[in-house]
Amino acid sequence: MIIRKAQRGDEFAILELIKGLADFENEPDEVVNTAEKLGADLFDRGLCEALVIAFPERIIGFALYYTAYSTWKGPVLYLEDLYVLPEYRGTGAGSKLFDTVVSIADERNCSRMDWQVLDWNTDAIAFYERKGALIDKEWYNGRMFFPENEPK
Amino acid sequence: MIIRKAQRGDEFAILELIKGLADFENEPDEVVNTAEKLGADLFDRGLCEALVIAFPERIIGFALYYTAYSTWKGPVLYLEDLYVLPEYRGTGAGSKLFDTVVSIADERNCSRMDWQVLDWNTDAIAFYERKGALIDKEWYNGRMFFPENEPK
Repeated sequence: MIIRKAQRGDEFAILELIKGLADFENEPDEVVNTAEKLGADLFDRGLCEALVIAFPERIIGFALYYTAYSTWKGPVLYLEDLYVLPEYRGTGAGSKLFDTVVSIADERNCSRMDWQVLDWNTDAIAFYERKGALIDKEWYNGRMFFPENEPK
Repeated sequence: MIIRKAQRGDEFAILELIKGLADFENEPDEVVNTAEKLGADLFDRGLCEALVIAFPERIIGFALYYTAYSTWKGPVLYLEDLYVLPEYRGTGAGSKLFDTVVSIADERNCSRMDWQVLDWNTDAIAFYERKGALIDKEWYNGRMFFPENEPK
């Protein structure tokens, strides 16, 4: 298994994995992003970055992240998505991806790395706790939606 | 009351308000950021942006935000902090600040605006719900810390 930075062309495989993760989270209709928009946001606009994990050449998982900002702590690496195809769970692929993102956060002098996990995803919560993470349960997400601005 | 974009020099007043918010959230020791770092992150590095509200010339509140990224929705405006001094609550200052950030999210074609609110902060939750927000309670925050990278 090889972990590498996503490169142009990977946006198609990554979008399929994003849809797989949305299915797992019971929100299959929430993905309005497209491979073309994702490719532009990753490789032209620099809004986010991604790693992919390939075995041997098929992309079987990805991690997508960007630089967020904490008024308390300064720059924070935000891990938006981490996903490995179900048939490759238990192979260490997710662990290797996570550890690589942690290394990047540390290399970039971030004092914190953040992400979110669904309250019912006990396997993921146990995985993160084994990694030494704090799972903080006291915040709710506030959201306003602008459906007219969704990618077409 | 006047709302304007933060400008160089405002980082000192904003950091005092950040500390006020951390006190309110019972985490006064968590603010390791400094006015100098915040000023560089706002005005040199462009990691975040801020609005301030002044009455008549004293800064009585602020909102700090940046562009986050949703794999499902594309670019998202993330409201990291919104705070008004306790003695100016009920004056509409917080409402005006929030509405201004919503307008910016919409103008920038974001399809979502996100923030977080503490589960016990029922006044804030009611305020956001009056604004038409969804308060989503099913996610936990995962966090890894790198104390050696904290601003010195």
